[in-house]
Amino acid sequence: MGRVTVRRPVLRIRDGVRSERPDTLVSEEPLEIRVGGRPLTVTMRTPGNDFDLAAGFLVSEGVVRSPDQIAGIRYCAGATAEGTNTYNIVDVVLAPGVAAPDPSLERNFYTTSSCGLCGKASLDAVRTAATWSVADDPVRCPPEVLSTLPDRLRDAQKVFDTTGGLHAAGLFTADGSMLYLREDVGRHNAVDKVIGAAVRAALLPLRETVLMVSGRASFELVQKALMAGIPVLAAVSAPSSLAVDLAADNGLTLVGFLRGDSMNVYAGAQRLATDDRQGLLTR
Amino acid sequence: MGRVTVRRPVLRIRDGVRSERPDTLVSEEPLEIRVGGRPLTVTMRTPGNDFDLAAGFLVSEGVVRSPDQIAGIRYCAGATAEGTNTYNIVDVVLAPGVAAPDPSLERNFYTTSSCGLCGKASLDAVRTAATWSVADDPVRCPPEVLSTLPDRLRDAQKVFDTTGGLHAAGLFTADGSMLYLREDVGRHNAVDKVIGAAVRAALLPLRETVLMVSGRASFELVQKALMAGIPVLAAVSAPSSLAVDLAADNGLTLVGFLRGDSMNVYAGAQRLATDDRQGLLTR
Repeated sequence: MGRVTVRRPVLRIRDGVRSERPDTLVSEEPLEIRVGGRPLTVTMRTPGNDFDLAAGFLVSEGVVRSPDQIAGIRYCAGATAEGTNTYNIVDVVLAPGVAAPDPSLERNFYTTSSCGLCGKASLDAVRTAATWSVADDPVRCPPEVLSTLPDRLRDAQKVFDTTGGLHAAGLFTADGSMLYLREDVGRHNAVDKVIGAAVRAALLPLRETVLMVSGRASFELVQKALMAGIPVLAAVSAPSSLAVDLAADNGLTLVGFLRGDSMNVYAGAQRLATDDRQGLLTR
Repeated sequence: MGRVTVRRPVLRIRDGVRSERPDTLVSEEPLEIRVGGRPLTVTMRTPGNDFDLAAGFLVSEGVVRSPDQIAGIRYCAGATAEGTNTYNIVDVVLAPGVAAPDPSLERNFYTTSSCGLCGKASLDAVRTAATWSVADDPVRCPPEVLSTLPDRLRDAQKVFDTTGGLHAAGLFTADGSMLYLREDVGRHNAVDKVIGAAVRAALLPLRETVLMVSGRASFELVQKALMAGIPVLAAVSAPSSLAVDLAADNGLTLVGFLRGDSMNVYAGAQRLATDDRQGLLTR
């Protein structure tokens, strides 16, 4: 955990009283992900679980979905001028026959010349890329179980209490058992680390699981859940419009503002039904 | 404001009681930024102030720093199959002689073959790109003024109270007057919108100003402040290690956990001094 946090001096001001003391900060460092030696992306992340992050990123991009598609993951010998390995470059070697991702800029442009860029085009792009359908996942998530997840996520977070600066993502079974917890300065990285740990353990598609995130639910997070086959995404804070649209479009259950016994269900509410009469919002 | 929020049905669960009602969500839509007709990036953003967002993004990228470098900004005729303009593609035409950004993927890779990717390489890259120095900015920010900013930011936010889903960035003078407020589902977009509004008004470098953000302070946000010549960045939540390093390296004042009369000063504390004896942490 050495590189996950760092100590720095800080001037504290409390009601006009000043004091200087060391403070614990969450580490942020660049990570370059290469595939077969070819640079694919750079993300600012908290060091730790880097192989999970790389593998999860490739799941989100639709490149891999099982561990046999990955021949190996290693740190490159990218070193400082002093010769020290920075452990900030990871190379993923794909198994023979697995198509490498398109490293060109065009992969970021899901418009076509015949259609203006819009939310619907974004939804279509995910539908095209998705490997699994979560719509038929029979899992049921009682609100009583969901309401325990935020505290369990927080209790399991090792770093947040000392820095206040980390996002967390936790993967749970439908009865509330935690499978994986990952933390990162970037919310999308925390999710990629969870999904990467799961794909390396050959657990995809992640049927009958719940992904809980500490912040808001964006389009990108719903997309990552879908690419991993996760049927339920729960967030402490608000979802965006496009996150709700993407969830509804693909039969994913999306819960927001999950705090204590309160929650808002934006899509797939049938999975929270405690009897058949409560299958509301089943669109 | 029509596209900034949308209404969707939601199932609310409060202490086991269920009710269905409409809820207000923050809009998230893709925006493609083109320069001279050439695609540069796509960001998921909240519609509104799109020209500011595009201009601010180009400031952050080191492409422009004054309005005369921009010949024009317009929405492209990117339309849906039904022929409706989606207003999700913006094209920036640069003035003659202004170098267009490198649209290749390589611009995302600030490593060299002789140096491993590391935090220091990231700091060096910003130092190379920065147009102005903020280190010599003489502005003073009394804690009494800083402590008023979070409430002023919140009071000025139009959308947060209805959705709970927006980040805000506000630009203030050193005496606490608000120059610009922008909101977005993405924190970096809110900052780009503020900086873009300022560059279009020929206000760069933004000497003697304070940028206040609703969330955490990452490396990327400090970078954006530096590229706009902003000497003080204040955040409601925690900074990362690399954000602090970048601020200290460039003489930017970085304040975190700014809540009521409490704040932590991570770099450039001399600007909060109320007399000479309190010039702590002047590194």
